[in-house]
Amino acid sequence: MSRRAEPVPDLVARALGGEVRAVARLISLVEDESPLLREVMAALAPHAGRAHVVGITGSPGVGKSTSTNALVAELRSVGRRVAVLAVDPSSPFSGGALLGDRIRMQDHDSDPDVFIRSMASRGHLGGLAWSTPQAIRVLDAAGYDVVVVETVGVGQSEVEIAGQADTTLVLLAPGMGDGIQAAKAGILEIGDLYVVNKADRDGAEQVRRDLRSMMTLSERSEGAWRPPVLTAIAQKKLGLDEVVVEIDRHRAWLESSGELDRRRVRRARTEIETIALTELRRRWGDVGRAGLDDLARQVVAGTTDPYAAADRLLAGD
Amino acid sequence: MSRRAEPVPDLVARALGGEVRAVARLISLVEDESPLLREVMAALAPHAGRAHVVGITGSPGVGKSTSTNALVAELRSVGRRVAVLAVDPSSPFSGGALLGDRIRMQDHDSDPDVFIRSMASRGHLGGLAWSTPQAIRVLDAAGYDVVVVETVGVGQSEVEIAGQADTTLVLLAPGMGDGIQAAKAGILEIGDLYVVNKADRDGAEQVRRDLRSMMTLSERSEGAWRPPVLTAIAQKKLGLDEVVVEIDRHRAWLESSGELDRRRVRRARTEIETIALTELRRRWGDVGRAGLDDLARQVVAGTTDPYAAADRLLAGD
Repeated sequence: MSRRAEPVPDLVARALGGEVRAVARLISLVEDESPLLREVMAALAPHAGRAHVVGITGSPGVGKSTSTNALVAELRSVGRRVAVLAVDPSSPFSGGALLGDRIRMQDHDSDPDVFIRSMASRGHLGGLAWSTPQAIRVLDAAGYDVVVVETVGVGQSEVEIAGQADTTLVLLAPGMGDGIQAAKAGILEIGDLYVVNKADRDGAEQVRRDLRSMMTLSERSEGAWRPPVLTAIAQKKLGLDEVVVEIDRHRAWLESSGELDRRRVRRARTEIETIALTELRRRWGDVGRAGLDDLARQVVAGTTDPYAAADRLLAGD
Repeated sequence: MSRRAEPVPDLVARALGGEVRAVARLISLVEDESPLLREVMAALAPHAGRAHVVGITGSPGVGKSTSTNALVAELRSVGRRVAVLAVDPSSPFSGGALLGDRIRMQDHDSDPDVFIRSMASRGHLGGLAWSTPQAIRVLDAAGYDVVVVETVGVGQSEVEIAGQADTTLVLLAPGMGDGIQAAKAGILEIGDLYVVNKADRDGAEQVRRDLRSMMTLSERSEGAWRPPVLTAIAQKKLGLDEVVVEIDRHRAWLESSGELDRRRVRRARTEIETIALTELRRRWGDVGRAGLDDLARQVVAGTTDPYAAADRLLAGD
């Protein structure tokens, strides 16, 4: 495994040709927050925008990896090229992501049209908000039809990741907490599609009924998307065919309603902002006349307040 | 409940005098992201920095509310004035915070030296990273000896909140997942103090042993703080006396080692940055020659890339 630097145009050309190792290398650049990314993203820009980005989220224990795996198999059976990006917002310290990769790879190991990759947050400004859209762009430009972004459902990160997807699939399972928990976690607002996994277990029907009645109660305007509630047994690869049908139906709605474009513009806004803020933060870290450290010391001493300090930071004096 | 605007200097004076309704009003201003905060924080700045900020975190189910409650009782028994700030990073949509307040208030309802308040994230830039330090400053300036910041342990938010505290207490319980889970969640890096709650349950001793051996294995430099692992049964108010002893011992170490100042400077840095970034984001939202929306549309169309767009945003052209 040579790490000798390959010129960016060559690397990009190979990734655009769908070469797996080049794709993997580009995603490593994203993870490493490489300075080369600027050049990479400029080269990829004209080639992105075709893939359908499906976010999958849910609490630990609902069977996310198994469901993603089964969904990939179903998507392959209808001829789609699929990339899976498993993002782990739970910890900047975790080394768990890679382990997950190896376990997951087994099923699709020999399939050149499936690409699976984990990404952990480095805990920097923006974190996954910074790296996820860039990794999606790489996979999109490399010609995958569907990019599945799988994330552990942990509150705010969950909502963030939902912002990255065209279609957000929320996974639930019986015994994982009642409807109030679901409402509290905010998942009723983020899903385009709900799947009750482990549908052969006690309580699955109740979860499905609860969800459906909550969906019915929530007001939606004319022509709005009404999130379907499906059931599946991912372990036995059951129910995923209908999930794919609904993903496609949602995609069609996104296009006809203009919502696809709105979501993508919103996503691009966030991405641009995050890059700009990262750059500013880098500048502020530099020692200067009113260096951030100095200002922070003054705040701690009580000789200034954080608003006045922020003003001085922005004024650069 | 009159919402008639009271002049900030009067409100601040009453809060500095420890008047509970004024303190509550100031925290509402923080939650509402009021433009008055600039004036409020300037007025509070010289009066803050005395309180000890204790962060309490742990997964759902470890008994966080009960433990916080028991800790408050213990702190009261040794004469400390205590404020509790329960932050809920799990959802910008949640209405659950207030319910929690009411349940928790019962124990300390008639005690004027206990202040309990929940705060939910509005999901704006910075979220709790923006509001938590401001709420802490209010409580600190109002003369509470200890400000307990309680948060649901959800990965990155957990780590964020740890950054806000002088002393971070990580709560665990038997049956809440094994050591690998703990390691994965990154909690072994953030705790200054570990408390195994529900110590009368099966498996508690195992959790304590696992944690202790993990602590022993992790390398620490000379003079570094070695996080103690304690046990408690919060429901029966057992073990909290030792927790308070260890919190005080940690405070003494923070002061003697210079770490208290380092942590507070780091906290102030983050706070200043967050305010500055919020201000920039507000400016960028305004329609201009190279409005953010325009740039986002170009990124979606593939005619520019997010880095080039960020450059233009920063250049303001």
